[in-house]
Amino acid sequence: MPSSQPPHDHAEHDHDHDHAACGHDHGPKHIYIYSPAGAVRDKAAFRRGVKRLQALGHEVEVDADALSSHQRFAGDDAARVAAIHRAAASGADLALISRGGYGLTRILPAIDYARLGKAIADGMKFVGFSDFTALQMALLAKNGATTWAGPGLLGDFGSPEVVDDIMEACFDDLLSGHGEGSGWRMPATPRSAASQAPDDVYVQKATLWGGNLAVMAGLVGTPWLPAVKGGVLFLEDVNEHPYRVERMLTQLLMAGILGRQKAIVLGQFTDFRLTPHDKGFKLQSVVDWLRSQIDVPVLTGLPFGHVPTKVLLPVGAKVSLSVEGRDALIYWGHVH
Amino acid sequence: MPSSQPPHDHAEHDHDHDHAACGHDHGPKHIYIYSPAGAVRDKAAFRRGVKRLQALGHEVEVDADALSSHQRFAGDDAARVAAIHRAAASGADLALISRGGYGLTRILPAIDYARLGKAIADGMKFVGFSDFTALQMALLAKNGATTWAGPGLLGDFGSPEVVDDIMEACFDDLLSGHGEGSGWRMPATPRSAASQAPDDVYVQKATLWGGNLAVMAGLVGTPWLPAVKGGVLFLEDVNEHPYRVERMLTQLLMAGILGRQKAIVLGQFTDFRLTPHDKGFKLQSVVDWLRSQIDVPVLTGLPFGHVPTKVLLPVGAKVSLSVEGRDALIYWGHVH
Repeated sequence: MPSSQPPHDHAEHDHDHDHAACGHDHGPKHIYIYSPAGAVRDKAAFRRGVKRLQALGHEVEVDADALSSHQRFAGDDAARVAAIHRAAASGADLALISRGGYGLTRILPAIDYARLGKAIADGMKFVGFSDFTALQMALLAKNGATTWAGPGLLGDFGSPEVVDDIMEACFDDLLSGHGEGSGWRMPATPRSAASQAPDDVYVQKATLWGGNLAVMAGLVGTPWLPAVKGGVLFLEDVNEHPYRVERMLTQLLMAGILGRQKAIVLGQFTDFRLTPHDKGFKLQSVVDWLRSQIDVPVLTGLPFGHVPTKVLLPVGAKVSLSVEGRDALIYWGHVH
Repeated sequence: MPSSQPPHDHAEHDHDHDHAACGHDHGPKHIYIYSPAGAVRDKAAFRRGVKRLQALGHEVEVDADALSSHQRFAGDDAARVAAIHRAAASGADLALISRGGYGLTRILPAIDYARLGKAIADGMKFVGFSDFTALQMALLAKNGATTWAGPGLLGDFGSPEVVDDIMEACFDDLLSGHGEGSGWRMPATPRSAASQAPDDVYVQKATLWGGNLAVMAGLVGTPWLPAVKGGVLFLEDVNEHPYRVERMLTQLLMAGILGRQKAIVLGQFTDFRLTPHDKGFKLQSVVDWLRSQIDVPVLTGLPFGHVPTKVLLPVGAKVSLSVEGRDALIYWGHVH
């Protein structure tokens, strides 16, 4: 079971106090909900998500087109671009996607990155995952801005189940400015595995980047994938058979991207179905194969992906990564 | 219904007589069957395919590892690379894949392209599709060799149904050296479509390239995708929802590949399932969108893909392309 790294004892230091939008207060925050990709069909989940955020004491502002629908999209391309720009102009503490789906990749050229970059410099946190990876990569490529890999409204706060404790604690940490890192315990290497988890790893001042593998692979060769060297690259995906995961990793490998990183961190790969044809080929086979191709350490088990228990991660920020035995930690707080 | 272009009347000219491996004789040919990708599970289809080729009068040689199995692959990586090299060394007139699946992409760096290029220069035709696209692109990138987009043994000659007439006629044309072009009738543009098929098109001396879209997109940014400019790019895929087709086309678009071509020719996109969430988003939406993004003509209906009726196409060859009304022709024969 992955676990969120317990926050440091913040009574000991107050280095964040000088950040206007990142203080230690636990007061109500302004959260802006918008739909940059797929149309919201489950209105009940949407309402449930908004109510849960309000119950946490936050002011929730819903974008005018958050529930719009055009074909499978939350409005046509111009409407979704406008929604993103409204989110940036909202002055909110945090802009949260309603959901992912598909829709950001094709509107990347129409987004005003300077406008988003300014909002981020002023303290706004953009949070999301899955399709949202496209916007995160484009922002990082265009102006180096940090965004947050984290929940979406519908699947996380709008879940019919109870909201995941760890995700909610990380989300609260982000809003209160307390989040400084995420730790997890890597799965034990299966006895049958051809590869071993790497020895202890310690990486400093590396750019954390990544997100959804299919979206990342789909940006290779385009101007929207940042040229990160010496980074920590994290990847997750859903509904992708391991052979497709491998084909996408092969693209990142052959494009020279994996070999340039200091570490590859695999999150959750879920909801695929093996078939009799696979005859022993599985996700671990892909990990084994990847480890045979590069010297870069390949870590597993990051609690991030299309699963309820997801940590929040600063995409584009400088982080340190430490691995001792099966215990891994990505840390972006100040070093004391 | 697509139709194969009737071969020219070859009694009128004999320009092919000086090609050693491409003469006008209809004698028996030597066909080499090998498995560079997925394992063959349907042995009955394999035997049926071999028998049908033999019944056409050909000598069929089966590679030693054609029926090997390692996980989902037809042997481990080294075995499949060796099989490809044996095919090249076989002296056969034509090397035919048993099937596609997945497996070529990850072994591309281990293949001896000079050896394959020499076999091709000596007259051997490499034929296949789907996953085989990876090898075709790598060969074109490494030494400009021409290979053939065409059938595989299992799904085509090994089909439990009758073998498709048009495919078989094109295959026979290739073996006898009579094939000079493929024509087809483009589908009428649906009344609801936002885009029109292009006006008449006439392109000369353009490199024909392409194949499976997922494989092509997966090679973007790697050394294995040839940098073809001013080409005719054809694409097909199976089991890919239109939003995924669009995301892959977007990658080719944003990487600058589509805009550099003289024409994009869409083949068959089959076996996907639309969902209620799509609300009108469909394959035609993707075609409309693509046409709105580039000035390059986008043709449809090429009889090639994961369907029985597939023409054979010389990947890497110089072709002309003409479109008059709904009638399209890709021609690679000599111009008289």
